[in-house]
Amino acid sequence: MQFFKITHKYKKARVGEIETKHGKFLTPVFMPVGTQATVKIMTPQDLKELGVPIILSNTYHLYLRPGIDIIEKAGGLHKFMSWDGPILTDSGGFQVFSMSKLRAITEKGINFKSHFDGSEHFFTPEKAIEIQNKLGSDIIMSLDECPAYSEDKKEIAKSLDITLKWAKRGREYHKSSDQFLFGIIQGGIFEDLREKSIKELIDLDFSGYSIGGVSIGEGKELIYKITKFCTERMPEEKPRYLMGVGTPEDIWETVEMGVDMFDCVFPTRIARNGTVYTKYGLLKIRNGDFKEDFKPIEDDCDCYACKNFTRAYIRHLFNVHEILGMRLTTLHNIHFMIRLMKKIRNAILNDSYEKEKQEFFKNYKIDI
Amino acid sequence: MQFFKITHKYKKARVGEIETKHGKFLTPVFMPVGTQATVKIMTPQDLKELGVPIILSNTYHLYLRPGIDIIEKAGGLHKFMSWDGPILTDSGGFQVFSMSKLRAITEKGINFKSHFDGSEHFFTPEKAIEIQNKLGSDIIMSLDECPAYSEDKKEIAKSLDITLKWAKRGREYHKSSDQFLFGIIQGGIFEDLREKSIKELIDLDFSGYSIGGVSIGEGKELIYKITKFCTERMPEEKPRYLMGVGTPEDIWETVEMGVDMFDCVFPTRIARNGTVYTKYGLLKIRNGDFKEDFKPIEDDCDCYACKNFTRAYIRHLFNVHEILGMRLTTLHNIHFMIRLMKKIRNAILNDSYEKEKQEFFKNYKIDI
Repeated sequence: MQFFKITHKYKKARVGEIETKHGKFLTPVFMPVGTQATVKIMTPQDLKELGVPIILSNTYHLYLRPGIDIIEKAGGLHKFMSWDGPILTDSGGFQVFSMSKLRAITEKGINFKSHFDGSEHFFTPEKAIEIQNKLGSDIIMSLDECPAYSEDKKEIAKSLDITLKWAKRGREYHKSSDQFLFGIIQGGIFEDLREKSIKELIDLDFSGYSIGGVSIGEGKELIYKITKFCTERMPEEKPRYLMGVGTPEDIWETVEMGVDMFDCVFPTRIARNGTVYTKYGLLKIRNGDFKEDFKPIEDDCDCYACKNFTRAYIRHLFNVHEILGMRLTTLHNIHFMIRLMKKIRNAILNDSYEKEKQEFFKNYKIDI
Repeated sequence: MQFFKITHKYKKARVGEIETKHGKFLTPVFMPVGTQATVKIMTPQDLKELGVPIILSNTYHLYLRPGIDIIEKAGGLHKFMSWDGPILTDSGGFQVFSMSKLRAITEKGINFKSHFDGSEHFFTPEKAIEIQNKLGSDIIMSLDECPAYSEDKKEIAKSLDITLKWAKRGREYHKSSDQFLFGIIQGGIFEDLREKSIKELIDLDFSGYSIGGVSIGEGKELIYKITKFCTERMPEEKPRYLMGVGTPEDIWETVEMGVDMFDCVFPTRIARNGTVYTKYGLLKIRNGDFKEDFKPIEDDCDCYACKNFTRAYIRHLFNVHEILGMRLTTLHNIHFMIRLMKKIRNAILNDSYEKEKQEFFKNYKIDI
């Protein structure tokens, strides 16, 4: 089983194939987020029917609730949530830093308090791997420190130092041949730190490499700049995963730089607020304009929501707080992302990326 | 097209067939409630797959939001909500009395204020029919006054008087041959008033007869007593609909008296609180006992929830407030009701009602 192979390249963009114990899928890929062992409101059957090839789940959340022991007893995360396709889990690091009450970070690990009940926990790079082993995810991440955006180079350098030591320990601890471990590139906005990060991680020979710490308020231009800097230095033959990024515009921009994998809560989160993707950009379905609009969300969309319901009906559902509204918009937005990735892969395969990208943005108005 | 025919009788219980423009179904039937043009969280496709033969929707809610004009412009309620099976709507009366701020009831009609926005509205028996005509429902109800439980006979007699006058006006106003109009029997706990109600409604020759005003706090024994009194006097050849009633025990009891149709929000409402039906009675899935229970909700249930998920997983979903939990329990409870009705029809068809009923309650513990 070859984990990753590139089947076609157009300039820096690549179409590839990733193979895991739970199935193969094509890259560039978008992974819907199933934080708490569920892609919100969707069943695994929905995801299958939508053509979702892989989902992401969050170690931090699962560790706290229901607890890793329960998932282990259930036979692993796949069985627990009844999803038999590939799963990628993060290391928990990002959420420890962004959600929990931090106690102390040392080289040894992270001491933190649960944001649910205040209970105390200790994460180490080894423990992050062990947890993900128990979950049985197909692609797993090494523990990293995720500092907030900062222009203090010293601080970021110190944090990177810890991340790299953790990467090494995680890499050494990881034994399972069924799970592919990625190293995470940190270094903030500092190119020399990013470069150092990449070099040291390459030496550790991970199955893939993630670009971390770019989705925390840097602004689009900076995200693209860092991503470009990284992709130019990342190994050609390993998958490249841009963590937490995934609006259509971000994906078009960074696939062009050679990114292969994306995850983002945005499509499913905005869906629950009644915002849907269309080829013309985002559309807020609660808007009074749609009160008597008996067209589907998107004319030429063949998702279940568009084939069966009107904007007027879905607006009504949101207006009277009916959950079916969120269910239909979630379904549509995931379908939109799956279709977008197909379009993007085809643009690479047809050696017509710039043309297709231009075509897409002729209609698509970026307004958020 | 014959609206209703009885195909088999066992003592007073009957199996029948109702035919409408939107399809046929067997009775006794349970109708899931789709108050706001959606059976909460379910798609029409889910309902089809569950074998739901007919749904109920609430005129009062639809009238206020999105408004009848919008549904009319959408091509009627079936098209609006994308459900092509039969729909029964109530007259709006019950909700006007139980939810809105009442202004005044006169023989002319009811003046009330919306519970959403305080806007003023006036319902007449003619208007109730007109609205349901516009909705395009298959089975419709005449406007009735629904007084709260009362031992004041004078008050109930006065109310019944208005209901009967409204029934007559509605019956005269109703023209559509595609829609079957039911008269509603009122009269509270007073047998002579119930009797009077039945006699006068029979003279008006409705397509079916509903037993109204029994689900408002009378207590089970009184509900059964009133229902028995009514069914013994209702015409044999017309369907009998016991409004708002529908726990398994109520259905077993009253089908035996000759009731054909039921609706109840209970199975879907308790599902959203994490309570599921099983052959042993109700089970609260949030309960800590199920933390590591890797069995399905019900062993021998073949619904999607039971075939794919464990109690431990569904408990986890409720525990972390994931909507998928409510979706799966709703699905299971509707499936349970559909299966129950099939079992009940078979018990009649096999002339073994008492035996099957006894068998059912050998396991099933009534605890709510």
